Amino acid sequence: MNYDEIFKSAIDRLHEEGRYRVFVDILRHKGQFPNAHCFGGNGPKPITVWCSNDYLAMGQHASVIEAMEKALHKVGAGSGGTRNISGNTRYHTELEAELADLHGKEGALLFTSGYVSNEAALSTLGKLLPGCVIFSDELNHASMIAGIKSSGCAKRVFRHNDLEHLEELLAAEDAGTPKLIAFESVYSMDGDVAPIGAICDLADKYNAITYLDEVHAVGMYGPRGGGISERDLVADRLTLIEGTLGKAFGVMGGYVAASKTLIDCIRSYAPGFIFTTSLSPVLVAGALASVRHLKVSSEERDAQQQAAAMLKGKFTAADLPLMPSVTHIVPLLVGCPVKAKRISDILLAEYGLYVQPINFPTVPRGTERLRFTPGPQHSAEMMDELTAALVEIWSRDEIQLAA
Amino acid sequence: MNYDEIFKSAIDRLHEEGRYRVFVDILRHKGQFPNAHCFGGNGPKPITVWCSNDYLAMGQHASVIEAMEKALHKVGAGSGGTRNISGNTRYHTELEAELADLHGKEGALLFTSGYVSNEAALSTLGKLLPGCVIFSDELNHASMIAGIKSSGCAKRVFRHNDLEHLEELLAAEDAGTPKLIAFESVYSMDGDVAPIGAICDLADKYNAITYLDEVHAVGMYGPRGGGISERDLVADRLTLIEGTLGKAFGVMGGYVAASKTLIDCIRSYAPGFIFTTSLSPVLVAGALASVRHLKVSSEERDAQQQAAAMLKGKFTAADLPLMPSVTHIVPLLVGCPVKAKRISDILLAEYGLYVQPINFPTVPRGTERLRFTPGPQHSAEMMDELTAALVEIWSRDEIQLAA
Repeated sequence: MNYDEIFKSAIDRLHEEGRYRVFVDILRHKGQFPNAHCFGGNGPKPITVWCSNDYLAMGQHASVIEAMEKALHKVGAGSGGTRNISGNTRYHTELEAELADLHGKEGALLFTSGYVSNEAALSTLGKLLPGCVIFSDELNHASMIAGIKSSGCAKRVFRHNDLEHLEELLAAEDAGTPKLIAFESVYSMDGDVAPIGAICDLADKYNAITYLDEVHAVGMYGPRGGGISERDLVADRLTLIEGTLGKAFGVMGGYVAASKTLIDCIRSYAPGFIFTTSLSPVLVAGALASVRHLKVSSEERDAQQQAAAMLKGKFTAADLPLMPSVTHIVPLLVGCPVKAKRISDILLAEYGLYVQPINFPTVPRGTERLRFTPGPQHSAEMMDELTAALVEIWSRDEIQLAA
Repeated sequence: MNYDEIFKSAIDRLHEEGRYRVFVDILRHKGQFPNAHCFGGNGPKPITVWCSNDYLAMGQHASVIEAMEKALHKVGAGSGGTRNISGNTRYHTELEAELADLHGKEGALLFTSGYVSNEAALSTLGKLLPGCVIFSDELNHASMIAGIKSSGCAKRVFRHNDLEHLEELLAAEDAGTPKLIAFESVYSMDGDVAPIGAICDLADKYNAITYLDEVHAVGMYGPRGGGISERDLVADRLTLIEGTLGKAFGVMGGYVAASKTLIDCIRSYAPGFIFTTSLSPVLVAGALASVRHLKVSSEERDAQQQAAAMLKGKFTAADLPLMPSVTHIVPLLVGCPVKAKRISDILLAEYGLYVQPINFPTVPRGTERLRFTPGPQHSAEMMDELTAALVEIWSRDEIQLAA
């Protein structure tokens, strides 16, 4: 038994497939985002970031920074414990109340990340419902898949956003079987949106509960940033809404919002919630400021939508392979991991434009892509520069002639 | 199918057992810890915190606060992405190098929490080693149990710190079977320590790899805060060391340190690492300052050991039911969840002393306890006050006469 050999061969497989990941070492500058610096062989180099999930640049918003600085000086760095053992602060309870209000739910619960919130909430719900069957959209995020797996429940995967298939699967189960439908609102790699209301109709018809991941929508959709479920006026029909503080809200952490009883169950039974140091009060204070700001300001949301529409327009006019998207996500199809990495490498090295290639397992093999996330701070000039660079690279022989 | 009823009954079960958890809402004050305020019915009330895992009060250390403030103003609130997609900063790579050095390993990898690091690293290791059998100490933390379960590997649980039992289980497996021994250095609810060297001897004899959780030891043991494995000069014998940034280092986050290849494997294959927004650079900057400080300063470590010894001495002299502990953890046995909660409630309400009752599932039923974590800032006077309060409460009829 040679352990080193086994581990080495696991890495070799990634190199062979062309999907070994190299992290680009960057440093953002508060107030100048999406401008940043990248660290490589020849010292720091200025770049423009085109692939951040700090969608609205709230990570540099004055109210967020101020709240964090204040909390840092008031209470210090970390919480010092789990929520149960000395790690429950005023900041945590206030943010939970704010998030419950955002989604029109009785309660909310914070987690250290969106990943953990999905993993912990789904696995706990499944375990509390004996014999539960979970119906899961085929494109659900890895964290939801992890939670469903850990729940031990039977799983039925329905084709992406396919209501007929979902109904077929629901109808095949016994009426008395507990059922949970788990899905996302905005699918972040394609930019399409789930038919939330129609899925709730099916949930009503088959007496299922619903679990909606809104991580790529909170802050960005709905008049107060409550997500697609707020925009579509269906938030009250959902059993549970899950969100993140690390994307449009610009900080870090995850949460779920639901009825008081359900929140109490997850709070009381989920190991991923119970046995972990709570979010730093500094982060919680920043998230609180961010959520509050985006509840009353639509400026950032509107500017983001305009930026996305503009970039899509420029990509289309330049005949670049834009994938259909009805949201702020702007993906270009490449279809090969090696080529996607190569285009990304050239963009960064020759143009100082940073967009990460998206390869398996984040997306299915054969659909490798570049995924752009224009925001309020990406100007028309930046978009022209990006479009021209992409057109030039796409025309190169090494890209045209590759498989 | 009445979902609400099912969820309500899950909560009712906790009330019936007397282990429904009520979070105490507190606010620490930087520079004054362990003094804090508690929020209840009658407005904020001053308290002394006796159950924080900010063991060395580094959460309020000037170097940590300064580093966080600087990073906050330099780069902003959050990282804006996963490590692979725009969330990899200079701070992250520097802290990983610092942690690798702390444990004398080739590499290290950051996670959003210690829980996630255990879950992600153990499950990934198990999945990469076909047919692997994992040998797990019976008192291992919930996050290790979650990781082992998620690995899908066969599990053999050995009696706590029992070398004979471990060897018996190792010997029962085929020589060619991959084997992993997972254990902790300091068991945080009892305060005892694993025989790391002897476990490594068994690992050598049976060609197993070793996984050591040092979350309750990093920063606190060893001349540079490298943990019990550094103190006992056995760090180089361990395959992987896992630690946290949220306890003695005073901030938030988790990590593993191991060989370059192993770190690369976990980095490349662990969903809990790949698919989550990276730690906020603000936290990473704070942790970096904390790790660096504790590498060269033993003052905090020494003061903590003196405080623990002093409190143990006072408890013993007062005839309180001190559980054996060879570390900084000072547990008092109660043995009943209702009584543990009651003593804790009286301490907080009547004395302004905050220690959380520790009930199942954190500890086995029948071993419910109060767990004190004295640190450098807990004075002899504070300890006398605490001891006197405990003696008074313990003598009350309602405690003496309860089952």
